[in-house]
Amino acid sequence: MNWEMLQKKIVCYRRDLHSFPEAGWTEFRTISKVAGILDSLGFKVLLGKDIIDESFIMGRNKEIIPEHMERALNQGAEKKWLERMKGLTGVVGILDTGKEGPVISCRFDVDAVETAEAADSEHLPFREGFSSQNIGVMHSCGHDGHTAMGLGLAEVLAERKESLTGKIQLIFQPAEEGVRGSKALVEKGILDDSDHFFAIHLGMGIPSGTIFGGSLGFLCTRKLDVHYRGKSSHAGLAPNEGHNALLASATATLNLHAISRHGGGASRVNVGVLTAGEGRNVIAPDSFMKIEVRGQTEEINDFVYARAVQILRSAAEMYEVACGVEMMGESFSTRSDEELVDVVCEAAGSSGLFNSVEKYVWVKWSDDAAGMMKRVQERGGKSTYIILGSDLKAGHHNEFFDFDESVLYKGVRVLLDSIVILSQK
Amino acid sequence: MNWEMLQKKIVCYRRDLHSFPEAGWTEFRTISKVAGILDSLGFKVLLGKDIIDESFIMGRNKEIIPEHMERALNQGAEKKWLERMKGLTGVVGILDTGKEGPVISCRFDVDAVETAEAADSEHLPFREGFSSQNIGVMHSCGHDGHTAMGLGLAEVLAERKESLTGKIQLIFQPAEEGVRGSKALVEKGILDDSDHFFAIHLGMGIPSGTIFGGSLGFLCTRKLDVHYRGKSSHAGLAPNEGHNALLASATATLNLHAISRHGGGASRVNVGVLTAGEGRNVIAPDSFMKIEVRGQTEEINDFVYARAVQILRSAAEMYEVACGVEMMGESFSTRSDEELVDVVCEAAGSSGLFNSVEKYVWVKWSDDAAGMMKRVQERGGKSTYIILGSDLKAGHHNEFFDFDESVLYKGVRVLLDSIVILSQK
Amino acid sequence: MNWEMLQKKIVCYRRDLHSFPEAGWTEFRTISKVAGILDSLGFKVLLGKDIIDESFIMGRNKEIIPEHMERALNQGAEKKWLERMKGLTGVVGILDTGKEGPVISCRFDVDAVETAEAADSEHLPFREGFSSQNIGVMHSCGHDGHTAMGLGLAEVLAERKESLTGKIQLIFQPAEEGVRGSKALVEKGILDDSDHFFAIHLGMGIPSGTIFGGSLGFLCTRKLDVHYRGKSSHAGLAPNEGHNALLASATATLNLHAISRHGGGASRVNVGVLTAGEGRNVIAPDSFMKIEVRGQTEEINDFVYARAVQILRSAAEMYEVACGVEMMGESFSTRSDEELVDVVCEAAGSSGLFNSVEKYVWVKWSDDAAGMMKRVQERGGKSTYIILGSDLKAGHHNEFFDFDESVLYKGVRVLLDSIVILSQK
Amino acid sequence: MNWEMLQKKIVCYRRDLHSFPEAGWTEFRTISKVAGILDSLGFKVLLGKDIIDESFIMGRNKEIIPEHMERALNQGAEKKWLERMKGLTGVVGILDTGKEGPVISCRFDVDAVETAEAADSEHLPFREGFSSQNIGVMHSCGHDGHTAMGLGLAEVLAERKESLTGKIQLIFQPAEEGVRGSKALVEKGILDDSDHFFAIHLGMGIPSGTIFGGSLGFLCTRKLDVHYRGKSSHAGLAPNEGHNALLASATATLNLHAISRHGGGASRVNVGVLTAGEGRNVIAPDSFMKIEVRGQTEEINDFVYARAVQILRSAAEMYEVACGVEMMGESFSTRSDEELVDVVCEAAGSSGLFNSVEKYVWVKWSDDAAGMMKRVQERGGKSTYIILGSDLKAGHHNEFFDFDESVLYKGVRVLLDSIVILSQK
Repeated sequence: MNWEMLQKKIVCYRRDLHSFPEAGWTEFRTISKVAGILDSLGFKVLLGKDIIDESFIMGRNKEIIPEHMERALNQGAEKKWLERMKGLTGVVGILDTGKEGPVISCRFDVDAVETAEAADSEHLPFREGFSSQNIGVMHSCGHDGHTAMGLGLAEVLAERKESLTGKIQLIFQPAEEGVRGSKALVEKGILDDSDHFFAIHLGMGIPSGTIFGGSLGFLCTRKLDVHYRGKSSHAGLAPNEGHNALLASATATLNLHAISRHGGGASRVNVGVLTAGEGRNVIAPDSFMKIEVRGQTEEINDFVYARAVQILRSAAEMYEVACGVEMMGESFSTRSDEELVDVVCEAAGSSGLFNSVEKYVWVKWSDDAAGMMKRVQERGGKSTYIILGSDLKAGHHNEFFDFDESVLYKGVRVLLDSIVILSQK
Repeated sequence: MNWEMLQKKIVCYRRDLHSFPEAGWTEFRTISKVAGILDSLGFKVLLGKDIIDESFIMGRNKEIIPEHMERALNQGAEKKWLERMKGLTGVVGILDTGKEGPVISCRFDVDAVETAEAADSEHLPFREGFSSQNIGVMHSCGHDGHTAMGLGLAEVLAERKESLTGKIQLIFQPAEEGVRGSKALVEKGILDDSDHFFAIHLGMGIPSGTIFGGSLGFLCTRKLDVHYRGKSSHAGLAPNEGHNALLASATATLNLHAISRHGGGASRVNVGVLTAGEGRNVIAPDSFMKIEVRGQTEEINDFVYARAVQILRSAAEMYEVACGVEMMGESFSTRSDEELVDVVCEAAGSSGLFNSVEKYVWVKWSDDAAGMMKRVQERGGKSTYIILGSDLKAGHHNEFFDFDESVLYKGVRVLLDSIVILSQK
Repeated sequence: MNWEMLQKKIVCYRRDLHSFPEAGWTEFRTISKVAGILDSLGFKVLLGKDIIDESFIMGRNKEIIPEHMERALNQGAEKKWLERMKGLTGVVGILDTGKEGPVISCRFDVDAVETAEAADSEHLPFREGFSSQNIGVMHSCGHDGHTAMGLGLAEVLAERKESLTGKIQLIFQPAEEGVRGSKALVEKGILDDSDHFFAIHLGMGIPSGTIFGGSLGFLCTRKLDVHYRGKSSHAGLAPNEGHNALLASATATLNLHAISRHGGGASRVNVGVLTAGEGRNVIAPDSFMKIEVRGQTEEINDFVYARAVQILRSAAEMYEVACGVEMMGESFSTRSDEELVDVVCEAAGSSGLFNSVEKYVWVKWSDDAAGMMKRVQERGGKSTYIILGSDLKAGHHNEFFDFDESVLYKGVRVLLDSIVILSQK
Repeated sequence: MNWEMLQKKIVCYRRDLHSFPEAGWTEFRTISKVAGILDSLGFKVLLGKDIIDESFIMGRNKEIIPEHMERALNQGAEKKWLERMKGLTGVVGILDTGKEGPVISCRFDVDAVETAEAADSEHLPFREGFSSQNIGVMHSCGHDGHTAMGLGLAEVLAERKESLTGKIQLIFQPAEEGVRGSKALVEKGILDDSDHFFAIHLGMGIPSGTIFGGSLGFLCTRKLDVHYRGKSSHAGLAPNEGHNALLASATATLNLHAISRHGGGASRVNVGVLTAGEGRNVIAPDSFMKIEVRGQTEEINDFVYARAVQILRSAAEMYEVACGVEMMGESFSTRSDEELVDVVCEAAGSSGLFNSVEKYVWVKWSDDAAGMMKRVQERGGKSTYIILGSDLKAGHHNEFFDFDESVLYKGVRVLLDSIVILSQK
């Protein structure tokens, strides 16, 4: 194994992916590229309905699929893979060693965020020419790095196939942002026979050189889309005849953010997107909000959610507008299994690549991997969520987000060695 | 003159225009149609830079011009006229009688509103198949009726050319909504030699059968575009690192609408459009608002405007976001000249078409014609703004807006007879 | 008649009243003084239940009556009159000429406002030592001037008794602020046999030297007291267990002020007082608001009132607090009768005391006199509401409010002469 | 020691204190009672300036002191002690054994909360006739229980004096609510020679039968009083002339509660009290708010505080009102010393009175004891903050708050035994 060459390849993958970021459920180019590479390495490639149960899809806008498939084609996706996807993103690559042994699954998330990337010479992706070509979408959470690690791992696993046992399954998950995508994969049953499950996330405030074998916590979360529908009128002639959905949303927004902190632990609430109104001189007849709530426990999450719904409905009544609330995603808290955490720590420790190897970190965000971890655990398997430290230029989801690429091959190395350990047990 | 046939023709024009509504500064199909008809009737046709001083254009988004020109082509605009427009909408048709006499100008506004038209069988344009084919844009203020009247007037004037004197100028004005368009026409000087100026508006709460020869009042108004720019961050991991432009906008909006009424007379304020945010789990880094203020007098308008700017800047400071305020349109109060009002009342009275002919109505809206009226009056001419009553199905700018088409030919008749009276003085 | 001496006396009365302002329903010292003077001039003096129907009293807090009676005693009220009042303020003085003739009523309001008077040498009442001795209460609307004019009028009427006919009734009304007091007087029937009714108000933006014989308009109004009741909890330990009445009130307040302007005419809304909460580290379990709405017409007033109640109830639901709304006062629009307006203008014109004598002014406030005017008109009599111009140092209800005292005797002169004209018809 | 009799006595003390609650800095009756008992038991009694450095007093309103001293006299305070207090509450009782040994200090807080106690037969203090006789003030945090424990401890210490060594100092602290009182005691130096420091709090969500020997955490906090000063005007006639301090406060309140959660840990913000306005029909010229912020760390507390000040200033600017912010109290986080925690756990364990004895609990509130603990620790001593479980009827600061009195003597027993252990080391 030439790790130096592999690292170059991974960085190359990452920068290509960074140039063509695709938001959740529209990752057609990304999945096409991944599928092509997995296929060339000898993995069995599963796509579309083979890995997704459509009745459990959350937060996917069907209407925009055709235009994004077309964009993917224009940006280098292969028609052959697009056809096999049938509009559904995500791909699973299976390496079957043919020998008895454990089933090991690794999750890599592939989607980008709706952030407009900084066009500033301070920003390395811009300066070096691989910043986003898809306006308003950006890999500002590092999933380009995750996907690149997944491809690197596929390559080293394929090389080592002979020395491994059991089956290794690489899951490239769509729509992690908004915790939308995993449910449809889980409900399809793709994890039902997994003995071990790994997810990995880079950055998250942990510096390069540090690795955590597992995580505790995660915030439970619910994602809501809210539509208000009022009545327009002429803002000069008869403003009193309108039912103002924009004002209703402004009131809802302020009061949502003012939901009480919870004495029992961390909570969050965010109105991330608000669009309202038709014209300057028209009382705004409708509005739309993308909202999320989070809580350290189910109870806290339920509290914030119940308060949010109460506020949304009351603000609608206040302005006599109709209110529609739609659940767009949901995730929950989980914990990594110590047995698997120890395996990761052993692999990381013996690699000599890290200054600091620790077992657990408390996390204050939500990750769609939670649903996968839970399913594996429910069926008797073990799961862990690894944090791979990486120095950041700016926080996750910021337009200047950029991470230290030098950690990527280290993540691949840890995953590989962990799989080898499990494979040889 | 066969008025019955003319009325049919006008309704036909109106319904065609209603099907293809175009918002301010994008009225390419509309102007192309009007230019074609004026030309065929023997009017001299002026377009583009001949009637518009580009340095005085307000509230025009250059970037969307090409796509709207293309749409106009697809919807029946003639290439020849589009080419002469050079991206600038509006057309002036001049009928020069060759005889000495007054210069008389009539203003017809041609743009539509950003209202999504009701798709409901209760709504006549929908039921009869002429509702908007341009999603999100609708003739919900009656400018389709105004334009149709202008075309009807052109026809009867052309027929009567021999019996008229002086010059008659029909101005089809772009971008009346938002009081944006007239300034560029006025500053080009197209009204500088007019002796008489007529504008006409249908509906406005006045029933069919009533006509007012003139108007007092108008609300002074200013139109503002506001951009907030904050800082994004991950809503779960580090919400405290964000500078939330969406929350700043929500606070600004509520407080703008809560600006104090003025003891001295009517005022208005409206945030008609608000868009903010990038993604559900991102602290929103930017927002955009379309705002307008109005006042019965300059003093009141200034009061509301000053309060609005104070609130916009303070809300920005409150959330540590940058604030940009851009003036997008402006109009002011005016009064119709009694001399001209009397002419209209005489014409209306002797026509026998109205139950009720009155001189003045107080108006509580703003119209971009104010700038034209003022210019003519400043140069010694006379102006009036006629209100042609028309029963409405719903208020102006409402998605169910529809007017009583049977009044259209009556408006043409009153304008024609007024011109004849002036022409023969 | 020595008008110079009378003017000195009126100013003297006014400054004494200004020193001891009393808010609505607590005007014990004021009424005691007035009753004493009327009695000494030979008027028949009616007090307490003789002029008030207790079942129609609005906005009176019984609990504070004893302490205010005691304060009045300490500030010079006579025990004899206090005993006859039986806790109810207001006094009517009747001058019966014994001759046949019209019944003429004049209304003077006597209550002060809950304004803390400016302690500033720029402020004349402070500089000259007659500013309020009752902290937090101030004659900041000029009712001290009105009462003083009533006393001056009593004196000149008593002098002229022989030359008059019919009966003249001077009504010193309690609790005009908040439009609370007149209903109980009207329902008692004290105006049921009046042929003519005069009310007079000084200032209101009209300069010294101008007088309007009558008024059009008045804003209709409703006054509401609102209580919210939530649930307290420890703000550090379990803020989530509270139901925050303070936040509910803050939301209600902002949205009340943001109630849409009405296309049909002037409207007003004000949250004048808000008190909420128990302690800094307690989630506030209750709050209280004093609110008023106004409208140029009944329809507009109803619109604002309905919106206000909707907002108050929805804000309560939003925070899961109980909501109690109590009506504390109500008034409506009216118009002065031209016949009486003409009498006032004749009197004012022939006096030579005014630069400008006009018939009607549009008014944009509410006055409790409206209920009296309406009752007289309903029973066939005539009413007018006179505006006596007076230069002001600051607006009504401001802590620096002060008027031009030199107009007071002019007001008395106009009322006297008007009564003489009517008396001699 | 007859513990049964002692428990009866403690309950008796507690119920007497509960009947006469006194808010911070007005605990004249309470301190008088405590001083009398300490004196009778042979403690040296220090009061007033002997224990308080006046230049470090926070959040004390001098103007209300005389009336509260008078109330205390009427409610049974002894004149002799009142005179020695010189207006300053708090008392320190010192038991000097005369033998060499450690200096041990115990803190008991004595003040009540501004909660109106429930008058409801469900509420035991009301049902049994010992609910608050001071309207609007209530022992809703259990400090009556703390004070009663302090008195019980004084009694058993006095009995055991011969078997103890060193000096024992019982500190009855004023004004713990609002974390105002301890600073003036600490700065006076009363803790400068203490080797060991105990504070104890009952309830806090921990059930009867459980005890924690020590605490980690505490929220850092700052307490702010905010005054807004605008300009009044007549709400009907000229609302536009006012500068509305009430609206400014409503906006500030909503936005304060909407301050972003912090990714680094727990935070709190509360507007506990808001009063604004003068009269219903006056634009409110001033307002007052009592505010607190908290944070799990100094950094988080600083973040919330900085955001709060920014919001308060911007809301003032938005409404053109003047803004005054005054710091009224401050406290910070701390940790109990393990050495002392072990002593408490040993005492509690060997008493056999508890089901569950644990070392540390994380706390999410603030306690003014933090300043005392810190001072002792800074000078080389050890501190601990004990949580004595007690079943509650309602949360702290709620009007139905009531605790399980049966735990009181257990708290005394644990403190006594801990002192004995330390005394005999």
